[in-house]
Formats: sequence, structure tokens, C-alpha cells
Amino acid sequence: MNPSPAVTAPVQQGGVQDVAAAARRVVDAIVRAGDAIAAQSGDLATALHGVADRIDLAAPPLAERMTTMWLPVDSRLHNPVNGLENPLAPPLEITEGADGDVAGSVTLGLPYQGPPGHVHGGISALLLDHVLGLANIRAGNSGMTARLALTYHRPLPLFEELSVTGRQASVDGRKIHATGTISADGHVAVSAEGLFVRPRAEPGR
Amino acid sequence: MNPSPAVTAPVQQGGVQDVAAAARRVVDAIVRAGDAIAAQSGDLATALHGVADRIDLAAPPLAERMTTMWLPVDSRLHNPVNGLENPLAPPLEITEGADGDVAGSVTLGLPYQGPPGHVHGGISALLLDHVLGLANIRAGNSGMTARLALTYHRPLPLFEELSVTGRQASVDGRKIHATGTISADGHVAVSAEGLFVRPRAEPGR
Repeated sequence: MNPSPAVTAPVQQGGVQDVAAAARRVVDAIVRAGDAIAAQSGDLATALHGVADRIDLAAPPLAERMTTMWLPVDSRLHNPVNGLENPLAPPLEITEGADGDVAGSVTLGLPYQGPPGHVHGGISALLLDHVLGLANIRAGNSGMTARLALTYHRPLPLFEELSVTGRQASVDGRKIHATGTISADGHVAVSAEGLFVRPRAEPGR
Repeated sequence: MNPSPAVTAPVQQGGVQDVAAAARRVVDAIVRAGDAIAAQSGDLATALHGVADRIDLAAPPLAERMTTMWLPVDSRLHNPVNGLENPLAPPLEITEGADGDVAGSVTLGLPYQGPPGHVHGGISALLLDHVLGLANIRAGNSGMTARLALTYHRPLPLFEELSVTGRQASVDGRKIHATGTISADGHVAVSAEGLFVRPRAEPGR
């Protein structure tokens, strides 16, 4: 079953997604290099500021961007988890979603590290909060996170494919419960329970 | 009271921190520009791949980096929250830390967005998990996150200075409790309670 277009966006060759992917490579390389680039840091920083300057020149005013980025075509592209146009997003790839579940896979490198060789506990929380939210969107009842409880069962390795799942558990009026997991090598490493509250009225934007 | 050197690293002019700061500008600009850079995406991606290639050439083998990045001088620089050499880190700036507390401030832009104009709930979780961990390190008893419970009291705005606090609440054998908050404009928007478990033996690296 294909992912719902409400929760994920198609991968495009070319365009902004390519720029974001290249920026992701830069981020990863910087953390992998560390002090090894100290001697050429001036040149590298200048090159990156040059790219940022070029992008700034093209960027619309912030108020305009805050509107257009929430149009249906763009709203799945800029978030920090599976947003293909956001270099912070690893990105999580939504791979399937049977029975209303949302499932995804991701392999995380050094920028996402917490303990040596393992994923930062807060990054696991970020992935799970987002996937629980996507499961709610997919189920047609979504809201803002009110409570999120994470249990860390075992360390989550870097450099290995991780499976992330989310599903809506129940809806009670405006209160929505969802659960999810992150697994490595078939073992659940982190699990989450979330309470989300649907706004009284949909936002106008 | 100055931050403990165990939890934060000095800001340096020049060096890798400048490269990371420039990469942060690129990340922010990409998310602010969106489709406005579609027409020049090929050129921009090529420029960024060029920078990544240069850094890759200088980077040590991964196994070597995995060792050196955990030496005391580097170990506070590469994490995704206050790591000045990690472009994913906003970075959170540790501003004070009286009575063993850890306090920090940060202003978040579009790459960290969840709901329109507001911080992604998972980013709040990332900041709090990390600051609770820093509070434990500062208190001299630290461990891996076992449970983290977040309560979202109100939406947290982008583009405004946020205050983050963490403190160790109690230690019971290997079990460590810590709490923390994120506030905007003097109001607590997100609070966290964490249970951390000290390893039976310190890792050998």
C-alpha cells in the first residue's frame, strides 16, 4: 500500500530536494571531519556563506514564505523529519502504511549522535513525535502534541537501518491517542505514547 | 556563575565552528527559500557538493573520528543541540547554571518548525532530553535516558528567544531523575521529567 499523499511527498530529481540533499552531505561531512578541516575553515566558511548569500537573494519575504509553505503542495516538504527540502531532516523515508499505520525507515549518521555510536535520545523523540502526528493526519483526526511519553528499551545504533512505526490508538472527543516504536534489527529500542488535542477550530492558514 | 566546562564549550572565532555556522545559514536559507531556488538548484547543489567533497577529502577514517570526537576537548562540540561544530544544533547557548542547574537560550527559525509559526514538538523534546542530560553531567551522576515524559502546555513560537532549564531532581542508586522546562516570554510552554540510568560500568571509550 502506498503512503498517503497527506503524510509524505514524492521524491523529485532536481529542484530544491537536490539542494537540500547536498546541504545534508555538507552537514554530515563537517561532523565527520571535525578538527581535520580547521586549517581550511576560512575558505570553507566563505564558500558556504557565498551559497547562503545566493539563496537569500532569491528567497521571498518571510511573511510570504510562511503562507506558501503551508499550501498543500509544500506542506509536507519542509518539516525536520521527513521534509525532503529541509536539510535537518535525515530524511525519514515513509515506506509503507497498511491499516492506517505509518511506517518509515531511516539510517542516521554522526550529526544525530548522542552516546558514542548511538542515536541521541532526543532525536528518537523527534522522530516519534512526528510519526505519531503523521499517523493522526492519516487517520483524519490530528492535533497538537499535549503529552509525549518515551521509553528507551535499548540503545539505538547509528549507521544501521531503523524502522519507525506510528498508529492512532483511539479518539475521545478532541483527545487523540497514538503510539509508535523505533526498532533496529527487529528489536524495539524506543517506544512512545502520545496524547494529541485537536484544536477547537482548524487554523485559517 | 559560568557554565561548567563539562557541559559547554567555548565559542571560538575561526575554525570548524565558523564552517558549522556558515552551514547553518545555508540550511536556514534553503527552508526560507523553498521553490524560489528551483531554477538555480543545479548550480547550488553543485556548489554544495563541491564543499562536501573538499571536506570529505580532509576527513579522517570514521573509526578514527569515532575515537577522537569523544576526547574531552571535542566531546561537547558535536552534539545536535549545543554542539558548536554540528550544523544541526541551533545551537542552544548555555547562559548560566546556578545551584547546579543548567540554563540556556535559543531562538529557532524555520528549519525547526512544526505547526505554522511554532517549534516542532519533537524539537522541544530534543532540547529537553539534552539539557536534562547536561544537568546530570553537571551534577556528577549521569546516564542513558530510560524514560522521558513531556507535557506541552502552550505552543512555542519561532523567532523569539526561548529559555531552557534543566536540573537533577534526585539520585536513587543507578536511577537518576531530572526535570526541565522551555519557556517563552516568561511562560513555561513545555516541561519534561526524565529517568536516566547510570551504566553499570563506564564505557571504555
